[in-house]
Amino acid sequence: MGSGWAIAVHGGAGVDPNLPKERQEEAKQLLTRCLNLGISALRSSVSAIDVVELVVRELESDPLFNSGRGSALTAKGTVEMEASIMDGPERRCGAVSGITTVKNPISLARLGVEMVDNDYFITEDNVGMLKLAKEANSILFDYRIPIGGLESCSSVVENPLLQMNGLPISVYAPETVGCVVVDSQGRCAAATSTGGLMNKMTGRIGDSPLIGAGTYACDLCGVSCTGEGEAIIRGTLARDVAALMEYKGLGLQEAVDYVIGKRLDGGKAGLIAVSNRGEVACGFNSVGMFRGCATEDGFMEVGIWE
Amino acid sequence: MGSGWAIAVHGGAGVDPNLPKERQEEAKQLLTRCLNLGISALRSSVSAIDVVELVVRELESDPLFNSGRGSALTAKGTVEMEASIMDGPERRCGAVSGITTVKNPISLARLGVEMVDNDYFITEDNVGMLKLAKEANSILFDYRIPIGGLESCSSVVENPLLQMNGLPISVYAPETVGCVVVDSQGRCAAATSTGGLMNKMTGRIGDSPLIGAGTYACDLCGVSCTGEGEAIIRGTLARDVAALMEYKGLGLQEAVDYVIGKRLDGGKAGLIAVSNRGEVACGFNSVGMFRGCATEDGFMEVGIWE
Repeated sequence: MGSGWAIAVHGGAGVDPNLPKERQEEAKQLLTRCLNLGISALRSSVSAIDVVELVVRELESDPLFNSGRGSALTAKGTVEMEASIMDGPERRCGAVSGITTVKNPISLARLGVEMVDNDYFITEDNVGMLKLAKEANSILFDYRIPIGGLESCSSVVENPLLQMNGLPISVYAPETVGCVVVDSQGRCAAATSTGGLMNKMTGRIGDSPLIGAGTYACDLCGVSCTGEGEAIIRGTLARDVAALMEYKGLGLQEAVDYVIGKRLDGGKAGLIAVSNRGEVACGFNSVGMFRGCATEDGFMEVGIWE
Repeated sequence: MGSGWAIAVHGGAGVDPNLPKERQEEAKQLLTRCLNLGISALRSSVSAIDVVELVVRELESDPLFNSGRGSALTAKGTVEMEASIMDGPERRCGAVSGITTVKNPISLARLGVEMVDNDYFITEDNVGMLKLAKEANSILFDYRIPIGGLESCSSVVENPLLQMNGLPISVYAPETVGCVVVDSQGRCAAATSTGGLMNKMTGRIGDSPLIGAGTYACDLCGVSCTGEGEAIIRGTLARDVAALMEYKGLGLQEAVDYVIGKRLDGGKAGLIAVSNRGEVACGFNSVGMFRGCATEDGFMEVGIWE
């Protein structure tokens, strides 16, 4: 323990293979900025729990991914966000759902907040994508495809074989955000935040605010998941990474590989994780995942595809 | 597997030591009636998932425990219920929270419902207990103590040392309800339902609707928990019974004893569990727990205290 800090961030699992290059670059730049923000804090001995909150606040405040400002819209055109945060050492945690006016849901999960109008969260892009989703009678996952790129999207919507929760889906890219950190004292923490599914029923609660599903941290590790909520909930995915380490003695990457390979029953998801030994791991079975990670010894990586 | 069916029900962990004898008898009679209902269904080869729903519906419809009709009241005097249900074989599950007009929340969690006015759930006893809770600026756990028995209750309220979630508590008895079943084909299922805490903030979500916390079922076992929600959530208590069996090879009772002894960090809770081998187990570290269980070989037990 205390073998050095490590940090990982994600912007969601499941990416449209046709996502325009400039959108890919924007995403990588945001992930890099968030990593650097976390790294600076870790170098200043900020604790893991403070770092995950800081980084997720940055992801929420930037409209690029689906959390905070820029969140996916409900069927009613409003934003309902959810988030959870967990501190490893004593497994203290907080979670919120159905949030409509708190600027940074992750901080409400931890308790300490600024209020804004619901309009603050709604972006022009998302209003357009909701319209599209309603026309297609679908929950849209990749609401980020710019209007110019809708031909490919529409063609998929028309394919009745692509379904989830009984509804046709277009391109699968929920783009929840999350951050996991182990600080130089070996303390782990995890945080996850999302606007949920585009065109979702108001009141729908996914895996992101559920401790053990979307988020988990204990003395061994910190985990944040993203992807198909139902599969993540059924698999208690975040807790199972930790349970495999605690009860079966697996290493961090082994545990991550096990849950992605064996606990998803065909569901698509991804996760980031850190261990109290300063290790970092990532796993996903979706087409791509927006993620980045860095460790104290100078390693840093940002990627979207395999 | 398929070594015979088993069933367990609970009406909540944490019971007022001074609970009047006639109230104790009423509780035992209800638990016995629910067990017999489940036993009859199991003898007719009804599947585990159908039996847990059937039994929890009965518990919700009877005003005695804190679920469905007779639910604890929010600070606003309304009822907001939550429930979850899980089928072991494919780990399919459903969960609901903030329910105000669905007669049987457990059936909404499974999808198939009757609506009623919120008033249906509000009993005269609970209106009285909410008034008391507000006067004491407290969340009341044992709202079931009849008006005649309030002296003992008030004396505890005045003890500032008894606190939970930063509020003084009177007598700790949340009285969530739950049922776990393994049928003769070795299929396990679990269901949990509650009205939550008396005088709770509207919108508060506890452990009962959280898969892995209040409820869990897989091919190995079914588990329903009750008690201090925060401790159950932090401990992913229901999933951990199963994880200890799956990843550490523990037997059912060993796994139950482990989570009650090691995963609660001082929190008070209890749980009931069945295994695919037809075993049944119960564990709690609270003062008492309303519970009953029965197995195919003729064993049947209903109890409140240790």
